[in-house]
Amino acid sequence: MKTGRLEAFSDGVLAIIITIMVFEIKAPEDASFESLKPVLPVFLTYVLSFVYLAIYWNNHHHLLHAVNQVNGKILWANLNLLFWLSLFPFVTGWMGENHFETNPTAMYGIVLFMAAFAFKILVHFVIKNEGKQSNVGKVYSNDKRLNISLLLYLIGISIAFIQPIISLVVYLVVALIWVVPDSRIEKTLKN
Amino acid sequence: MKTGRLEAFSDGVLAIIITIMVFEIKAPEDASFESLKPVLPVFLTYVLSFVYLAIYWNNHHHLLHAVNQVNGKILWANLNLLFWLSLFPFVTGWMGENHFETNPTAMYGIVLFMAAFAFKILVHFVIKNEGKQSNVGKVYSNDKRLNISLLLYLIGISIAFIQPIISLVVYLVVALIWVVPDSRIEKTLKN
Amino acid sequence: MKTGRLEAFSDGVLAIIITIMVFEIKAPEDASFESLKPVLPVFLTYVLSFVYLAIYWNNHHHLLHAVNQVNGKILWANLNLLFWLSLFPFVTGWMGENHFETNPTAMYGIVLFMAAFAFKILVHFVIKNEGKQSNVGKVYSNDKRLNISLLLYLIGISIAFIQPIISLVVYLVVALIWVVPDSRIEKTLKN
Amino acid sequence: MKTGRLEAFSDGVLAIIITIMVFEIKAPEDASFESLKPVLPVFLTYVLSFVYLAIYWNNHHHLLHAVNQVNGKILWANLNLLFWLSLFPFVTGWMGENHFETNPTAMYGIVLFMAAFAFKILVHFVIKNEGKQSNVGKVYSNDKRLNISLLLYLIGISIAFIQPIISLVVYLVVALIWVVPDSRIEKTLKN
Repeated sequence: MKTGRLEAFSDGVLAIIITIMVFEIKAPEDASFESLKPVLPVFLTYVLSFVYLAIYWNNHHHLLHAVNQVNGKILWANLNLLFWLSLFPFVTGWMGENHFETNPTAMYGIVLFMAAFAFKILVHFVIKNEGKQSNVGKVYSNDKRLNISLLLYLIGISIAFIQPIISLVVYLVVALIWVVPDSRIEKTLKN
Repeated sequence: MKTGRLEAFSDGVLAIIITIMVFEIKAPEDASFESLKPVLPVFLTYVLSFVYLAIYWNNHHHLLHAVNQVNGKILWANLNLLFWLSLFPFVTGWMGENHFETNPTAMYGIVLFMAAFAFKILVHFVIKNEGKQSNVGKVYSNDKRLNISLLLYLIGISIAFIQPIISLVVYLVVALIWVVPDSRIEKTLKN
Repeated sequence: MKTGRLEAFSDGVLAIIITIMVFEIKAPEDASFESLKPVLPVFLTYVLSFVYLAIYWNNHHHLLHAVNQVNGKILWANLNLLFWLSLFPFVTGWMGENHFETNPTAMYGIVLFMAAFAFKILVHFVIKNEGKQSNVGKVYSNDKRLNISLLLYLIGISIAFIQPIISLVVYLVVALIWVVPDSRIEKTLKN
Repeated sequence: MKTGRLEAFSDGVLAIIITIMVFEIKAPEDASFESLKPVLPVFLTYVLSFVYLAIYWNNHHHLLHAVNQVNGKILWANLNLLFWLSLFPFVTGWMGENHFETNPTAMYGIVLFMAAFAFKILVHFVIKNEGKQSNVGKVYSNDKRLNISLLLYLIGISIAFIQPIISLVVYLVVALIWVVPDSRIEKTLKN
């Protein structure tokens, strides 16, 4: 199997997740700006989740770009990643509607952690297939961001039981680590 | 008609079904872990349905990969398959919300059966078009998994009226039969 | 603009409409088969709408296949068609939930009529662009099915005010006219 | 990165937004035409939003068509545009359900403004990448419609606090400015 259809399917799923998540933001019944107030935490969570899914789409694209052939393990590792990403609308809604309380904020971090771990597994099988000397192998063996993210998620989850707002800051910091354009990957791919 | 647009449309429908199904998992109103408890059966059903749809996407891909030309019968057989798969979110929600009671569990099995039967019809028309000596003809005439699955679904549906949990085990067993990578198909296609 | 992106966008919209329509079928709260009874009319309407959208996808594909270049008028005629098709989930839900009463059944027919009329407009602009001597021009100038459908929809809408069930039969007859594989188009395209 | 996957992802998101927006039009519980009356404002808002998203799809297509290579800034500017467009269903629902009251009508205008501004930023980064002497540079440096639209949105938002119906007329006028086929772009691209 070539990567074409896997990419198209993943893109479809990511596009749907990123879009339907907005449906967790329910239009208030009356027209006052006051009535938008309880919607604000859901909106902010939506922004955070939107950025995360955009990062995953971007990283996923970079990763699969370097893949020449898809085997069964890569296929299921990819589906595993999509599964955890598909839980974003649920945890986004739960955390937003409960105004960043402890449990939903910890749960949000758990899904972030599982998605990042699923991405790590996908990277593992891709490198196994392409070889450590391949472009993708070189890029990811030098990239510590994935491990740092996993560690930060664990910290964020733990802190949620003390002060959930700090967890959100941690989740935001991880997002910022990834938004910064990854010049190294582009350089390596160009060689 | 070539298979390109049929594949793209089917992929789109499958990506949407697999993703919007998550909306059956409704975020609980309060923030306690206790409130997640009634959500758990819906979540587990979602996992099962996710795996099933992933299997169908995979098998559908393998099947259409071997097709050179699409005629009207293949087109409608494919739409028939998509129709039964589109009922997954409904039965997933019904079974999950009713905590695996008899009727919803039997109904879930009926939709699984109808989807598998629709796939069998699709295989039939594809082989008729490509010939029994084609790759797809050779692969599927030796593959007994489809018939075994249909039989197991019938058993699962019947058992639901005695002990629905055993039905779930049966449905899970069928899923596992298909998740195991199908080395034979890959071998045959390579020749 | 080439037809590629127009087809891809239309396919995306059609795939989403056909799939999310199933969300009008709400999972009943209890697990008895009795509780499925009020769901049945929604289910039957869903089947009818699924078949209609499948027909539109198929016809749309045949039509755009014959187009070489897209101009602004074709683009907006296509968006007009997608607009009317996007109303299918709404009228499907309204007719199904009200068990085929007069007004929703008439409204369903009106949306069917408007979608068919929008398709006629699209055909008009495509033929204007490609010329009457083109393949698409020859096929559609001899095809009376579109006009017959429009007439039957009008009859169906009128009858809804006397006996809505007969309207449904009329809508079903129109669907069957189109499901029958269109051998003429395939023949003409092959020449 | 080539524009292919960026276009496909954007198309997917736009197709989903334009389609799921229809779900804000909730099927009334009873079958009288009377019961459709409160649905009418939501329907009219839906029509307006549909036209706007169609315009964005069209302009986005023209813009990316002229792009040869995508860099990180274009990628995030594009995601920023998609973010604001993803808020259309929310503001469509809020404005429609509150029958064009002041606050929702102003909010609708704010999202229109932000989306147009996001498009302007995207145009900016595209021109920076392609050069002012490129086709896309020449087209957009002579095109005053984007700035006029931004100005009109600001006027529409302000007027909403006096008479929201006039705001709607303003939003409609901006839409009409863009629906008129853009012959200049086509001419410039042909040279």
